[in-house]
Amino acid sequence: MIRSFIEVEPESHFPIHNLPYGVFRDKENKEPRIGVAIGEFVLDLAVLDEHGFFDSTGIGGKRVFRQASLNPFMQTGKKVWKEVRSIIQHLLKEDVPTLRDNWDLRNQAFKSQKDIELMLPVEIKSYTDFYASKEHAANVGTIFRGKEKALMPNWIHLPVGYHGRASSVVVSGTDIYRPQGQTKPLESDQPIFGPSKQLDFELEVGYFIGIGNELGSPISVKDARDHVFGFVLVNDWSARDIQSWEYQPLGPFLSKNFATSISPWVVPLEALEPFRVKGPIQDPEPLSYLKVEGLNSFDIHLEVFLKSKNMEKPQRISKSNYKYLYWSIEQQIAHHTITGCNLQTGDLMATGTISGPTKESRGCLLELTWRGKEPIQLDNGEQRIWIEDGDEVIMTGWCQGDGYRIGFGEVRGRILPPKELDLHNKKHLSFSK
Amino acid sequence: MIRSFIEVEPESHFPIHNLPYGVFRDKENKEPRIGVAIGEFVLDLAVLDEHGFFDSTGIGGKRVFRQASLNPFMQTGKKVWKEVRSIIQHLLKEDVPTLRDNWDLRNQAFKSQKDIELMLPVEIKSYTDFYASKEHAANVGTIFRGKEKALMPNWIHLPVGYHGRASSVVVSGTDIYRPQGQTKPLESDQPIFGPSKQLDFELEVGYFIGIGNELGSPISVKDARDHVFGFVLVNDWSARDIQSWEYQPLGPFLSKNFATSISPWVVPLEALEPFRVKGPIQDPEPLSYLKVEGLNSFDIHLEVFLKSKNMEKPQRISKSNYKYLYWSIEQQIAHHTITGCNLQTGDLMATGTISGPTKESRGCLLELTWRGKEPIQLDNGEQRIWIEDGDEVIMTGWCQGDGYRIGFGEVRGRILPPKELDLHNKKHLSFSK
Repeated sequence: MIRSFIEVEPESHFPIHNLPYGVFRDKENKEPRIGVAIGEFVLDLAVLDEHGFFDSTGIGGKRVFRQASLNPFMQTGKKVWKEVRSIIQHLLKEDVPTLRDNWDLRNQAFKSQKDIELMLPVEIKSYTDFYASKEHAANVGTIFRGKEKALMPNWIHLPVGYHGRASSVVVSGTDIYRPQGQTKPLESDQPIFGPSKQLDFELEVGYFIGIGNELGSPISVKDARDHVFGFVLVNDWSARDIQSWEYQPLGPFLSKNFATSISPWVVPLEALEPFRVKGPIQDPEPLSYLKVEGLNSFDIHLEVFLKSKNMEKPQRISKSNYKYLYWSIEQQIAHHTITGCNLQTGDLMATGTISGPTKESRGCLLELTWRGKEPIQLDNGEQRIWIEDGDEVIMTGWCQGDGYRIGFGEVRGRILPPKELDLHNKKHLSFSK
Repeated sequence: MIRSFIEVEPESHFPIHNLPYGVFRDKENKEPRIGVAIGEFVLDLAVLDEHGFFDSTGIGGKRVFRQASLNPFMQTGKKVWKEVRSIIQHLLKEDVPTLRDNWDLRNQAFKSQKDIELMLPVEIKSYTDFYASKEHAANVGTIFRGKEKALMPNWIHLPVGYHGRASSVVVSGTDIYRPQGQTKPLESDQPIFGPSKQLDFELEVGYFIGIGNELGSPISVKDARDHVFGFVLVNDWSARDIQSWEYQPLGPFLSKNFATSISPWVVPLEALEPFRVKGPIQDPEPLSYLKVEGLNSFDIHLEVFLKSKNMEKPQRISKSNYKYLYWSIEQQIAHHTITGCNLQTGDLMATGTISGPTKESRGCLLELTWRGKEPIQLDNGEQRIWIEDGDEVIMTGWCQGDGYRIGFGEVRGRILPPKELDLHNKKHLSFSK
């Protein structure tokens, strides 16, 4: 097993096998740049680049790591991603003295993760959200339409998805105001306006498109992996009362567009390769353009914690796994582009809520509480059907290796009380910058 | 009436009252820059800027017009938009000698529209499409669900909308491959794969957000206009057979994301002000956050033409008007942001198909042919239910003033036969740039 000269605990998310990319800055140096997480540190790639370590890859001196987003690096393509990762991994090995014994360089290049601020890692172009967990789709369908009509007829034939809102994707740690909007409570004849009363999270995994395709040229299932840069955790916050009133016939809109939270570290696809597993058997067999072979899923443990303002530490409320997903990312990408739709560097794709076969593996409150019928009992005596003001939702995920973990870190977000609105006095807008 | 020293025919779309912005380049000078249309010419704003004409606005010398998109100019805000427009209008007046009599500058600054290539005018951030025409929603609802259930219960209470795909918005003149995908014909038990057989256009008007809002801070109906930079024509191509199979429960996805065509000239909101009219009476009265007063619609004539490969000239197949729209852009923007969703400079919003009360004013083939029951008879003997390969669809629009027109030019697009797909041989991808 390879080891780093940087000490890494077995339960750490960031061993030398992982090396996820993030964008960070610190108090001394406010300029954003790219780093990789290693143990409790971040390694500044801009510093390594300026010392010539990436000159062999052709990107040396192009400042791709002295950036506020990963996009310029993502645009360099798979060959360079692989080379850069290999160089970093080599430099961090315990038996390689280059960086290990250069204390001057180490002082420049390593920062404690405690001393840095992590930013949104990618300038997100478009955001697409799928609905790829059969258990989730069936649970939601059963809750709303009954067991016989749980899955729509199309669901088993194609990875259902929709276009989400890219502008409101925020990085872990960003507080979210409770959204306000139009709903129609069952007991009311008329719609009403006010703060959402059915605020939910959705446990998802997201992936970034590193290299896109030309308009009119679909990406095949076989090529799909080569376009994927890396993975993050996604909390697709959802206002269920707004959603159930608005969603017909054009799908979710305001119920999802107020915020989507992602984890700050982008785990490279390569780091997940040892954790490939077979996904669920697909029956009926998909149409030819969606047919995949081999190991198309990953064994990624996923957990959701809730911490109310009265709780001292978070309590786990869901325990799921990426491997339950029915539709693979190869199928999602092939389907998304089959009409000729072009993907772009920086597109965020998400899987949709990942629920498993057991009750504890349900990935959102709608399912966990069966739309309020089975409230969650918290250890401190509180109950939850939906998220309350002051609640913090924390999601985490990792692959368990032999003595190490490939972790995603976490995505956390706290719900603030609704913001007071001033909708009818014209604001003084100052436009010029 | 103000007049320009540039001769402009009464039926021209581009008199001195309009001055729409576009991005262009020409054979001699491949560098993209911003211009305004005047009669049969384009006036190069980068040249005017370099001669100091915009120095009083604070943007002088900042190269906002020597750009491949309008975004940097849009970001300057309403005050600057107004000043710049006023300076251009002044310089073009027949009794102002500054530009009129400076033949050297005129030779630099004017190009014939015949000699230029118009590009996508805006780097589109996100694309949102509404469903704001009551006649369109009711027609589609009647076709699919019968007259009693024509409108969903939410439709009269809020402007229904969804997130579209920004990456595949293309400029007028771009050929579109017929999309391929998964459909389930009525006569088939199983879904099939192949080229769409029900390809349609949608006649829409779009508008660009010039200045956005912060996440968590909604834009009120009163403030909404100040955020709008200008308007274009939109053809929201739609594959109806893909749509009807995929759209439940998350809305249109592949059926719309293969291409959306827009006109190249962005008509400033200010140019449309004289053509404000009252929109339809809204009954029931909308909730407070959607309440608007005064003239919230525009009298914009809209027409659709079709030209098959056998036709010598296009034939008009639809004649509608923007004023039929039920939900105004102020209401669309206020609704879109009421949850706190942030809009950004470069966001494209579209109204949805604009149909009117008469048969000839229906804005898409689905309605015009009542899903195939009433095929369109073309003058050359051909019939149309859906768009066929080689067909070109041309949309145009204008406001009729007294002896002049504020025109949108046109958005045109031709459908090419489906591209041959090679889905199972792994392509050699060359990534590095």
